Formats: sequence, C-alpha cells, structure tokens
Amino acid sequence: MQKKITKPTILPGFMELLPKDQIVFNKILNRIKNVYESYGFLPIDTPVIEKSEVLLAKGGGDTEKQIYRFNKGDSDLSLRFDLTVPLARYVSQHMENLTFPFKRYQIGKVYRGERNQRGRFREFYQCDIDIIGNDKLNTINDAEITSIIYTIFNELNFGDFVIHINNRKILNGLFEYLNIEDKENALRIIDKLDKIGIDNVRLELNKCNIENESIDKLIEFINTTGSNEEILKSLKELNIQNSTYNLGINELETVTHYMNSFGVPEKNYAIDLKIARGLDYYTGTVFETFLSDYPQIGSVCSGGRYDNLAEYYTKQKLPGVGMSIGLTRLYYQLNEANLLKDYETSLTKVLIIPLDDSLDYSIKLANKLRNDNIYADVYLENKKISKKLDYANKLNIPYVILVGPDEIKTNILTLKDMKKGEQLSLTYEQIVSSYLK
Amino acid sequence: MQKKITKPTILPGFMELLPKDQIVFNKILNRIKNVYESYGFLPIDTPVIEKSEVLLAKGGGDTEKQIYRFNKGDSDLSLRFDLTVPLARYVSQHMENLTFPFKRYQIGKVYRGERNQRGRFREFYQCDIDIIGNDKLNTINDAEITSIIYTIFNELNFGDFVIHINNRKILNGLFEYLNIEDKENALRIIDKLDKIGIDNVRLELNKCNIENESIDKLIEFINTTGSNEEILKSLKELNIQNSTYNLGINELETVTHYMNSFGVPEKNYAIDLKIARGLDYYTGTVFETFLSDYPQIGSVCSGGRYDNLAEYYTKQKLPGVGMSIGLTRLYYQLNEANLLKDYETSLTKVLIIPLDDSLDYSIKLANKLRNDNIYADVYLENKKISKKLDYANKLNIPYVILVGPDEIKTNILTLKDMKKGEQLSLTYEQIVSSYLK
Repeated sequence: MQKKITKPTILPGFMELLPKDQIVFNKILNRIKNVYESYGFLPIDTPVIEKSEVLLAKGGGDTEKQIYRFNKGDSDLSLRFDLTVPLARYVSQHMENLTFPFKRYQIGKVYRGERNQRGRFREFYQCDIDIIGNDKLNTINDAEITSIIYTIFNELNFGDFVIHINNRKILNGLFEYLNIEDKENALRIIDKLDKIGIDNVRLELNKCNIENESIDKLIEFINTTGSNEEILKSLKELNIQNSTYNLGINELETVTHYMNSFGVPEKNYAIDLKIARGLDYYTGTVFETFLSDYPQIGSVCSGGRYDNLAEYYTKQKLPGVGMSIGLTRLYYQLNEANLLKDYETSLTKVLIIPLDDSLDYSIKLANKLRNDNIYADVYLENKKISKKLDYANKLNIPYVILVGPDEIKTNILTLKDMKKGEQLSLTYEQIVSSYLK
Repeated sequence: MQKKITKPTILPGFMELLPKDQIVFNKILNRIKNVYESYGFLPIDTPVIEKSEVLLAKGGGDTEKQIYRFNKGDSDLSLRFDLTVPLARYVSQHMENLTFPFKRYQIGKVYRGERNQRGRFREFYQCDIDIIGNDKLNTINDAEITSIIYTIFNELNFGDFVIHINNRKILNGLFEYLNIEDKENALRIIDKLDKIGIDNVRLELNKCNIENESIDKLIEFINTTGSNEEILKSLKELNIQNSTYNLGINELETVTHYMNSFGVPEKNYAIDLKIARGLDYYTGTVFETFLSDYPQIGSVCSGGRYDNLAEYYTKQKLPGVGMSIGLTRLYYQLNEANLLKDYETSLTKVLIIPLDDSLDYSIKLANKLRNDNIYADVYLENKKISKKLDYANKLNIPYVILVGPDEIKTNILTLKDMKKGEQLSLTYEQIVSSYLK
C-alpha cells in the first residue's frame, strides 16, 4: 500500500535541538536545578493547561493576546504563559498544606504566541524560584535570591557578570518627594535610559508634565555613581525627607550587606538606580543580570520583591521575592555567542565494540561498567569495524573498548582514546580507575 | 481597591502534587532517566504543540477524538498525545544529522482528553526509549530494551516483577498455519484471555468463523507452560511448518539468550504466549511488565519491535524497538498501593537555625555546607525557636544546626537529629563526616 507522505516539520518559533545540543541544554538546566535544590527550594509541577478564568483572573495586558486559548468540550482552556500565575494559584489553593516561608522552584515550558522573530520562542523553558511569606517575609530573602543568581552564573562559567540591583521604594519615594504623580509612566521612561539616552528620557519626562526642577533632580539621582557603598552614602546625603525613600535605602543596605554574607563578591553586583523593571507588581528589591562580555544578550536573569502574590485568588497577604531564568532564549543566545563550545556533548563515557563472536562478553562488560557507575554503550549491529568506530566518533564518545577473542582469553582489554587516537592494552581495573572515572 | 477573588482550582484529570510528593515523583523520574542515559540513550525534547497535519498524519483511531486540537491564527495545532509520533517526525526530519542505530530517550508530558475517571489523567508523563535502525536493526536490541526494564524496576524496588515476553511472528505464523484470516481480531481476543477467561475467548473466536479444530490448536498453544526453556522447546515440537512462526521462535530464543547476558535473572521474565499487544504496528518482540504483588495495577511498562517507525513521513525504512513507562499513572498507582512510603521526602539535608544575632555566621555556614555538596537551608525569619524547628519538622529535614553566640565563640555547633530528637555538640568536620555525607 502506498502511504501518503507528510512533510515532517515543526511550527516556527519552537526550539528543537539535535541530541548533542540537547545534552548541553540539559546540563545547563540541571545545574540550575541543583543550585535551586541546594538552597532548600522545593519542586512543584503545575499543569500546562489550566482554566482560562483562573489563568486570566488578573486580565488585560499585552500577554492576553499571545495566549494559546481554546475550548475542549465545555471548558475554556489556556496554556500557561508564565510560572508566576500558576504559583499564585498553587499557593492559594494548597495554602493549608504548605510550610511558610514557602521556597519553591519550578522549571517548565510556557507558551506565548509571540510574533515570529529570530531568538524569540513561542514555547520556552522558565526556571523560576520564589520565596513566599505568609503575611510577612524578611528582606534578607531578597539577598538569598540574588546570591543564588551569583552561584548559578559563577558555576555556569559564561565569563564575568554583574547583578544590577535597585529598590522600587527608593524610586517611588523620590517621585513622591518630587511630586511626580504618574510614577508608573516615569518609571517606564527611566527604565529606557540605556536604550534611548538621557536626552530622550528628559524629553519624554517633559511630556508627562513633570517640572524641570524635578527632572533635574531625578536625572542627578539616576546618575549617582561610585562603589555600592558610595552610592548608598550619596543617596542618604540627598537628604530626602520621605519615609518610603528611606525605607528603600534601608532595604537596599540590608540586601547588599547580606549578599556579602552569602558570598557574592563586590565585583559581581552593582547598585543601579536605573533598574526599575517595567512591571507593575514589584514593590521593593529589583534586579537584572548582565554578562559583561555580551551586553547585547540583555538581562539573563531578573526578578524582585512583590507585596502580594495572589490577590486574585485569596485575601491572605502573600509577599514574596523571586527570579526567573528564561532558559530557551538564554541557551539560544549563548549558543549564538559561541559560549557553549566547551561543553562535552556525550553522556556516554565508553562504547564497547565486539569483534568476532564476543557479544556476550561485551554485553557483560557493559553491565559491569554500569554497575561501577560508568555510562556504557555496546555496538550491537553487524557492521565493519570502521562503521562501529564511526558511531563513537559521531557521538563524541571519548573512549572505545575493543573486545575480541584475544581480549576474552587474556582479560587484557584494548582501550582506544578517541580524541588522541591512542590504543592501550589494559586490565579492566586500570581502564576504570585511570580513564573512565 | 477590592479585587474580585477567583477560586483557585485546576481542571479535573490533571495531577498536581504537594512538594513532598513531587520530590518522590521526581526521584522516580530521575532514576528512570539515569538508567536510560547509562545505556547510551540520547535525550531529545520535542514541542508539546505540533501541526495537526503532522501529528495526525496517520489519522483515524480512537486517539483522534481525545486530542487537544485548536486554531491559533491560521494554524491548525494539536498537543502531542504520545512521544512515538513526535519521534517518527523527529527522525524523518533530522535523519541526515542523526547517528544510527539512533538510541533516544524522551521524558515529557503528553495530552489526551480522556473520559474523567479515577487514576486516568489527561496530562501525563511518558518516559520512552527507542532504538531506531536505518533499514536494519539487530534483534539483540530487543534484549537490551527488556533488560533496561529489569534494571529500572530492580532499582526502584517495588517488590518482585516479571517481564512477560512474546513475539508477534509466532502468533502471526500460527494464524497463517491455522488458516485464521482475521489475525488482528483473533489477537485482540487472545489478548483478553486474562480478563474474560478461556470459555469466553473460545466463544468470541467462534464468532469469527474460526474452525473448531483451529481453535483447539490455538488454545493448546496459548496454554503451553513451563520454564522459558521448556516453552521454547514445546513451541518447536509443535512442528508447525511455517516460516514466520519459526522466525518468531528464533527471535524469541535470541532475545531470551541475550537477556541472560544483559543480566536479567530467569525469575524476572517469562515467555507468555498470550501477550499480543492490541496495537497494529508491533511486528516482532512484544512485552509487558507486571508487579507480582500488585497485578491489579496492570502492565507498568510495555513495548516491542516494529518494522517501520515513520512510514507517514519518509520512504526510508526505519525499524525499531522501544518501550514506555506511563509515569503519572504508575506514580498514582504506587502511591495508592502505599509503595512509596519509604522514600525520603526532603532534598534538604540540614536546616540552620540562627539564634540571637547569628545570621551572618549562619549564612556563611550554609555556604560552606553547600560548597561541601550538602543541601542546606537557613531559617531567615524572626520567629520563636519552636516555629523555626517546626519548619524543619514539617518539611522532614533530617538535621538542624543551631547557631547562637556560644557556638560562634567556640566553633562547636549544636546538631539536632530531628528523627531521634537527640542534640549533640560537635565540630563542623564531625557533623559533615558523620551525619551529613
């Protein structure tokens, strides 16, 4: 019967990797996960499909247009577009069974039907951590979150990076003091400083009916520079009589003090008064992270403190602090910047190649290696030796053990180092202890 | 502003776990993954959303009604309902960049809008491995797949289990020999033997216009019992002159021989001539796995050999062998059977509790522990000591280190074993080497 052939393709905007790239992607994901777990974060896994009425309880916003929303039977369903809304729903729903502060991590795919363009994905991994307090949450948690960013990017080793940190209360207090009413808008304009330059920021602020004197003060404030300590000192010396402003400085001081205790070197973080984060729910600490050699990638990890995680699902006040790594986009950018070339692309440590009737022995040898915690594959097909070695080469498997009648008789195995091309005659124990461990 | 409160709930048929259960779920998933990787399987990760025309290229079947299918813009989209169709599409699409035999594993969620009932899920994890040959694939691979099932369920330690194994060619050959024309239907009836009993099987076979003599022979065949060796002997002695039948016996002999080499004990597999698998694409080895003490769970891991993975996407012949673990359902069943109670439900090994002004020291202590690869959490809130200990208790964290001014002065720490309730004064090194490693 002649079958109709359908062209095998995937949708645009979806990332799909070849195995060797997937191995690298998974290694990065696992390192992030391990760091999250090492700090006491608990895993959760929420459904990809939720009720639209729940996921969209907050409503409005640009996101709504991008959502994958559809009906099945009588149900109005949506695919999750982030991991924060599901977290809010999860905490509200399971509150009685959770222990606070609730430290959770979630790594999973989220969906946004964005305009199709290079480096933008419609299905992408987010790797999120949040610490949620029941009514209250100590500011020190903000320092823990930022120090986890440090630990992750230090381990991942993509070169120098700086965590830019600020506190929304400082900005809010300053706006109050300067009688700037449309804070949200002013914040949004300041957030664009790096993109549009100081003159355009001034221009846009002018359009918002902000007095020139206030604009001057605002720009003077944003341009405060120096070491972290110097900036904090300058901010205090501005002598602004506003309680929100001063609370913000206190919080920022606390966070930077404890980042120090958590072991974040001074060179890896910088108070940056321009960081505002264009979202309306951050209320305290905010941060973004930049790779020093690759500023064009933009922030690789952002987040902050919010007063109320789940106001659409519960009356209980749930303050929190969290951050997110958009792994799919990060992987894409790092790969484009050629920063992933040093990763090993094989999980298999050794391929066993049976020659002339040595399959049983080869299979048993592989069992033994796996029992010794060494990932081992056996080539099972009837092919020429060159084809068998090809398999190891193409998959970047670093070692091959050749097993033939001589090897079986003497128990001396032939190890081939695939990178060096060397071939050695060794006992099992020598191979394991000197090469495969 | 008074916000409207939306009741936080998820859809029926979706599994969502509390963190302590999620930890257990993830441990099972990780063990499965590690075994897959230890045998040389490569990870792939395909999109959850694909083009309907691609996912449904095969068309028809019961599955189609269950599919989550919808439009976004001009695109007709579907959520994947298994990992086999995406594999077929993946191999056809990326053929030029893959190395054969292509050993891949994929662990991910799939979607089926099934009727809502206890223990059935609309979103569930599948953990699949397949070995795909380009044109040919040695039968020994079938033995590798079944031996991986052994390794996994042996490690997971849910009690005794037996892999029931058969070969579709034996049944097909027998049907040919007995002039049974509607093989598919006869297979389906035989597959129900355990559920409906031998009399009903006879009755149903009768309805298919099968001669009484053939039915007698068929039932005699299915009732062949004994050790694996004895069954193979009996099958040969039936002296059926049919090449498909004899090829099937040869393959079954090969598979059981190499299962032995792969280290599967005789007690953990059984030739079971009733195993047919009601799917139309298996062509050789087929198997199902049962937990001896929990037969009601049904098969926990099934699979088999097929001649042609991707006939809807390519003219290239791609024979393969694979198996799947439906993890969400398995987890649910194991949990119901109370088989998961021995799993540790904390990833965190130790909680550090700071007393009176010892936060900095506590945080640095946690850093040190993490550098020594010990997962450590610090309690950062201002609460009474009893509340702090509560946190460790509720999260089943096995150890607590109490840090106060005395501990800081003397560098002798107080370790509390939360299970025994014991409290000990020890150095950091003693704690790490004797309790936390």
